[in-house]
Amino acid sequence: MSQLCEKFYAKGWFPGTGGGISVRIGAGTEADPYTVFSTPSGIQKEDMIGDDIFELDMKQNVILPPSTPGLKLSSMTNLWYVVYHHRPSAMCVIHTHSMNAQLATLLDSTEEDQVLRLTHLEMLKGVGNHSYECMLEIPIIDNQMAENLLEPDMTRVIQEYPKCNAILVRRHGVYVWGDSWEEAKTRLESFDYLFETAIQMKQMGIDFSSVPPSKKTKTSTKRAHNEI
Amino acid sequence: MSQLCEKFYAKGWFPGTGGGISVRIGAGTEADPYTVFSTPSGIQKEDMIGDDIFELDMKQNVILPPSTPGLKLSSMTNLWYVVYHHRPSAMCVIHTHSMNAQLATLLDSTEEDQVLRLTHLEMLKGVGNHSYECMLEIPIIDNQMAENLLEPDMTRVIQEYPKCNAILVRRHGVYVWGDSWEEAKTRLESFDYLFETAIQMKQMGIDFSSVPPSKKTKTSTKRAHNEI
Amino acid sequence: MSQLCEKFYAKGWFPGTGGGISVRIGAGTEADPYTVFSTPSGIQKEDMIGDDIFELDMKQNVILPPSTPGLKLSSMTNLWYVVYHHRPSAMCVIHTHSMNAQLATLLDSTEEDQVLRLTHLEMLKGVGNHSYECMLEIPIIDNQMAENLLEPDMTRVIQEYPKCNAILVRRHGVYVWGDSWEEAKTRLESFDYLFETAIQMKQMGIDFSSVPPSKKTKTSTKRAHNEI
Amino acid sequence: MSQLCEKFYAKGWFPGTGGGISVRIGAGTEADPYTVFSTPSGIQKEDMIGDDIFELDMKQNVILPPSTPGLKLSSMTNLWYVVYHHRPSAMCVIHTHSMNAQLATLLDSTEEDQVLRLTHLEMLKGVGNHSYECMLEIPIIDNQMAENLLEPDMTRVIQEYPKCNAILVRRHGVYVWGDSWEEAKTRLESFDYLFETAIQMKQMGIDFSSVPPSKKTKTSTKRAHNEI
Repeated sequence: MSQLCEKFYAKGWFPGTGGGISVRIGAGTEADPYTVFSTPSGIQKEDMIGDDIFELDMKQNVILPPSTPGLKLSSMTNLWYVVYHHRPSAMCVIHTHSMNAQLATLLDSTEEDQVLRLTHLEMLKGVGNHSYECMLEIPIIDNQMAENLLEPDMTRVIQEYPKCNAILVRRHGVYVWGDSWEEAKTRLESFDYLFETAIQMKQMGIDFSSVPPSKKTKTSTKRAHNEI
Repeated sequence: MSQLCEKFYAKGWFPGTGGGISVRIGAGTEADPYTVFSTPSGIQKEDMIGDDIFELDMKQNVILPPSTPGLKLSSMTNLWYVVYHHRPSAMCVIHTHSMNAQLATLLDSTEEDQVLRLTHLEMLKGVGNHSYECMLEIPIIDNQMAENLLEPDMTRVIQEYPKCNAILVRRHGVYVWGDSWEEAKTRLESFDYLFETAIQMKQMGIDFSSVPPSKKTKTSTKRAHNEI
Repeated sequence: MSQLCEKFYAKGWFPGTGGGISVRIGAGTEADPYTVFSTPSGIQKEDMIGDDIFELDMKQNVILPPSTPGLKLSSMTNLWYVVYHHRPSAMCVIHTHSMNAQLATLLDSTEEDQVLRLTHLEMLKGVGNHSYECMLEIPIIDNQMAENLLEPDMTRVIQEYPKCNAILVRRHGVYVWGDSWEEAKTRLESFDYLFETAIQMKQMGIDFSSVPPSKKTKTSTKRAHNEI
Repeated sequence: MSQLCEKFYAKGWFPGTGGGISVRIGAGTEADPYTVFSTPSGIQKEDMIGDDIFELDMKQNVILPPSTPGLKLSSMTNLWYVVYHHRPSAMCVIHTHSMNAQLATLLDSTEEDQVLRLTHLEMLKGVGNHSYECMLEIPIIDNQMAENLLEPDMTRVIQEYPKCNAILVRRHGVYVWGDSWEEAKTRLESFDYLFETAIQMKQMGIDFSSVPPSKKTKTSTKRAHNEI
């Protein structure tokens, strides 16, 4: 986890002490209960060492604190469990304050939109459950005074958008998960690339939520063909 | 190849598991048949190790799989052969999902353009077959549901644009090649620089496809002079 | 300090020989007077070695010069003392020429504004004394011919804005401090992220100084509730 | 020189095989003739090793070729001598294809301007001979089909702008020099920062060539005062 933290810090995704990572081990059955590992609160993630990790049981109780004294449990701890509960195969959740993620929540300047829609981009293949011509819908929830207060909205949208492996938090950042840390990282990079794409396309005057103009006829034909 | 992958990942050209590299060894004659090496599918390129490479013969048959078990052949494998077949001197092909390459395919917002044209830029010298005052024409093909389906369009444009060492794929990325990995990398960096230049010039209101205003008279004179 | 310098150079915050760092040790009482350590003037910070540091007493007298001969005291030395005097708990001050900081002082194109205001951004939590819904006010002072001439304006605004841990210098950069070097670095990264956010939001046509449109009703209700 | 090349490659200033560095040793007197060291042509600068350098005498004759066989003399070699001849104290010249430098030559979209003017920016202190309130004038020359053909225009403008330590080449890049490699690098970073500043300020609608609006009265007063 400390190596991932270094990589994400280098990308500017963990500014200050922002962002965090959680990994789960175990199936979550009675015979094989799962354990959750979580980065601590308020430390510079790129200087974290391997032992600066909290280990928790299925009921969010700390079973092993970090070896460095004085570290606090992250206020996003309960949010890891929202994902692990509603996405039984997820084994890793990553939260970043990426500039692209933050700005992607502001593409609708009224800030009323509850979802970001993207289609016809190759990198859609990287986020899971989507291919090039799919419409990706990423839910956006409003930010709260404290991170842990995001739980009700996260619980709601993770159920409303079962195909999407990410949740955007307005004026804040993004949560992304996968069935392994490799998959979570791959999806995170793909989502972030798509966020940047959306920001750039808007600036270029192109609607990222619509079928490309040159594809409109072809695509409808192809779809009809597929449906036969 | 793993060192190149690391470099390109650092530049943001291999987000998620996107992009890939192929190298060819051998002349392709009966006495000296060529062998193609290709990065595998769906792995994080920056963590690839030296042995995670497929080795294929001239008929696209795998003759040596990677030592890491479970790796799959990339769906862009047939595209390497399009280049190796139509550009007999090419010994290395690189495919990236660079943000600049992707956005360069959207500079015409109707997305009807089948070619990106650039002229009067010093870095034109870096892409092969072009000098400062040349008009570089890079073909743009439409993206498909699966990477391997790009083969017919790639086969068509690689013949239509014999001077160009790259093919852009709309809303996706770019393929670039050279007579060695060093040349492929050099051209890739030059193309990418030119893509970024075109994006920035459009934003600054400058037409990157036209002779600069201050050059119009001088250039036509010079050309006339050259032709004598 | 040399490791911090390397990190900040890599971020582009110390272009040329710009920027600097100071650390204070000691309580500043008669029994335990404090000592100030300062990076020297006019050297490339990323190549600085551990010993290239001036050590000064509470009256700005050099008590130990750097071991490398010929280094000069930085012209921002007196500014470190402005912070240490008016913020008794501050133990580290960092000055950068970050592009984001410089451009953030130009968001009001009349350049008459004496303060940059930001609200409803998660990263406000990273700058000290502020939470998500707070209005952050960062004073902007005009630049002077020499760095040390900034002292009167810095002395004035550090008292006028007791909640803010940074001072912007127009067309120049930013000063940020914290109770440890870790806190100063964390705040600096948070401020810089906020500067970039403001620049981007302005470009997207969003007013970063106002309550978000979708929050206006909710927030006023919540505030009323809090005040009861 | 190979370490500098690595640094500049990482910044994107040496895309492909673009850019180059030269260092001079010796006073240039009869008793102490100078020797010029130059990076070779057409190689990837970040992979250059220490010995891949040409050593030339005062008359541009090669006195020691690189140890790696097959390397060619750079076509910018004669341009190093333009600088060494007209700036007797310069001991290092650096040429980059920085995106900022290239775009800075296009800020006047008519491309008729022969000079880029910048004023009232702190980083002006980093380019040599200028302070905060000075007007920096950087000459822009038109690009040519071959690098060495830039000699006449470079020879003209280096004499016309004796205070400036850089020459911009339209749609190409920049040449910067200093009395040591450290000074050349410091100035280069400062110039590049100023180029980026100019590009950003134009996008923000601010005139980088004029005295800031809030300074107009004060400055004229101050100048009058200074002149007494």
